[in-house]
Amino acid sequence: MRIGLDVMGGDFAPYAIIEGAVDSLKFFTGDDRLVLIGDKAAILRKLDEMKVEPSQFEIVHTSQVIEMGDHPAKVFQQKQDSSIAVGYFMLQNGTLDGFCSAGNTGAMFVGANYTVNVIPGVLRPALATVLPCIDNRDFVLLDVGLNPDCKPDVLFQYGILGSIYAQYVLGIKNPSVGLLNIGEEESKGTPAVKAAYELMKESSGMNFIGNIEANQLFHKTISDVVVCDGFVGNIVLKLGEAFHHIYKLRKLRDEYFDRLDFENFGGTPIVGINANVVVGHGISKRKAIMNMVLQTCNVVHANLAQKIKEAI
Amino acid sequence: MRIGLDVMGGDFAPYAIIEGAVDSLKFFTGDDRLVLIGDKAAILRKLDEMKVEPSQFEIVHTSQVIEMGDHPAKVFQQKQDSSIAVGYFMLQNGTLDGFCSAGNTGAMFVGANYTVNVIPGVLRPALATVLPCIDNRDFVLLDVGLNPDCKPDVLFQYGILGSIYAQYVLGIKNPSVGLLNIGEEESKGTPAVKAAYELMKESSGMNFIGNIEANQLFHKTISDVVVCDGFVGNIVLKLGEAFHHIYKLRKLRDEYFDRLDFENFGGTPIVGINANVVVGHGISKRKAIMNMVLQTCNVVHANLAQKIKEAI
Repeated sequence: MRIGLDVMGGDFAPYAIIEGAVDSLKFFTGDDRLVLIGDKAAILRKLDEMKVEPSQFEIVHTSQVIEMGDHPAKVFQQKQDSSIAVGYFMLQNGTLDGFCSAGNTGAMFVGANYTVNVIPGVLRPALATVLPCIDNRDFVLLDVGLNPDCKPDVLFQYGILGSIYAQYVLGIKNPSVGLLNIGEEESKGTPAVKAAYELMKESSGMNFIGNIEANQLFHKTISDVVVCDGFVGNIVLKLGEAFHHIYKLRKLRDEYFDRLDFENFGGTPIVGINANVVVGHGISKRKAIMNMVLQTCNVVHANLAQKIKEAI
Repeated sequence: MRIGLDVMGGDFAPYAIIEGAVDSLKFFTGDDRLVLIGDKAAILRKLDEMKVEPSQFEIVHTSQVIEMGDHPAKVFQQKQDSSIAVGYFMLQNGTLDGFCSAGNTGAMFVGANYTVNVIPGVLRPALATVLPCIDNRDFVLLDVGLNPDCKPDVLFQYGILGSIYAQYVLGIKNPSVGLLNIGEEESKGTPAVKAAYELMKESSGMNFIGNIEANQLFHKTISDVVVCDGFVGNIVLKLGEAFHHIYKLRKLRDEYFDRLDFENFGGTPIVGINANVVVGHGISKRKAIMNMVLQTCNVVHANLAQKIKEAI
């Protein structure tokens, strides 16, 4: 499999990205190849400095860079020789099996729409992140930022998309699905969440266990998949980050809080598009990039996009 | 001032409530009196067991109990001799200056509508909670559960209500107001949040500092007031609870995480109604009840309801 890595995306690009790429290579198996997409001179300079043989990678040179402040909707067309655009074109023409970037998330999503497209039947793609529970299991939370406002049928479908992710990437059989809400009762929440509850309750296509409250999250796993709109999911994700950061500031030592470090997860797949694409946190450094690349390998080997296409 | 306490509300009522009431009395000053509202026989039995002189309190007997599962909209009319109903009638006829309960939050809100009413000009009352930052300051978060879906003008007004709370109860001059969002840029968020941003930006009536992201919360204080809808606020509040609970489960020791314990805060005022009313967490035990009563004293002495009436 050929995994593309955007070397120019993220706050610490390109050097931290290249460092993470080098680290990830140790865990590559079989015929897998890592394709570095970005400024070739910078890549070669950094590999030389690290005393790493460039032939271990494929390198695809690009001349343009998408910045975090660039407008996602416009920049993809304006910068067709940027690493994000080239990555997507390679996914589209089949020269990549997966692609990841810690760059502009909006541009990563727009790129999908310009090239590989949304899977027919998928209402809205989502960012699905994996977060740790204290019982050493993980749960899938979606959406964490693509769709701040979700209609009930979109939330319902996130239950399906999240289940496929949990099953094929995390290896969980018949994953349970919970709806994040502000009470356990059916009558709680916004009109959209209440209507989503009704749809989920009546569906035989997912293992729906009802509402989940935020104080149950991160504890002993109650549901393998937790569904919410992208506004709420983003708040949950970033509060996990906040408390992990406070844990570090307070110089505490604990195995669970160490696992809560986003650097261990590294990336979040865009589920629902016609390609295996993983988005990383803009502040990713060496370790987070390594994990983003390895996460992309997992998604590619599970062929998540194909599994979703078959299920929807 | 006369502070009413619902002795029958909460998971550990009535005995934990009475214990908390007894503890709170040590911190009462001046002419303040605590009025225990509930089953008189149970109150006297418990006080006798604790060897506490009943004359330190006023006791108002009630014969009915509102359960957590009772439907808020109906129960207030059906159980007019419940502690919540009697507390509100006493607020209405001026025999109480403040009232608090760890019982059915919905019934507490409905009770306000039946008796003291919403302050004219207030679009939607809110639950405003105080949460600790690592720099030993606190911030006011609202709404944390009354209005899961908020229109822009409601979010805007929460900025005003929160500012009044921060100023008069927490003693913060010219409190800063942030809008909880999924990015710092103006263009982020749901349509309602974006429109609220516009209203806040143009207002001279509040010290608006822009969007706040969830990973900035609980850190060094960025804004004294954080505004969000009741769905998101409830998620933030309960995630704070989740991480505090994990901290305890993991047997860590830290001054900041100790402060994060909801028992230290005890209660959340309903801001925007014509009375000083504080709602406690259903799982409140002795210490949380004590703090809820003391929090009510603070709100009464600041006369928060009157301050809001003057400002709106």
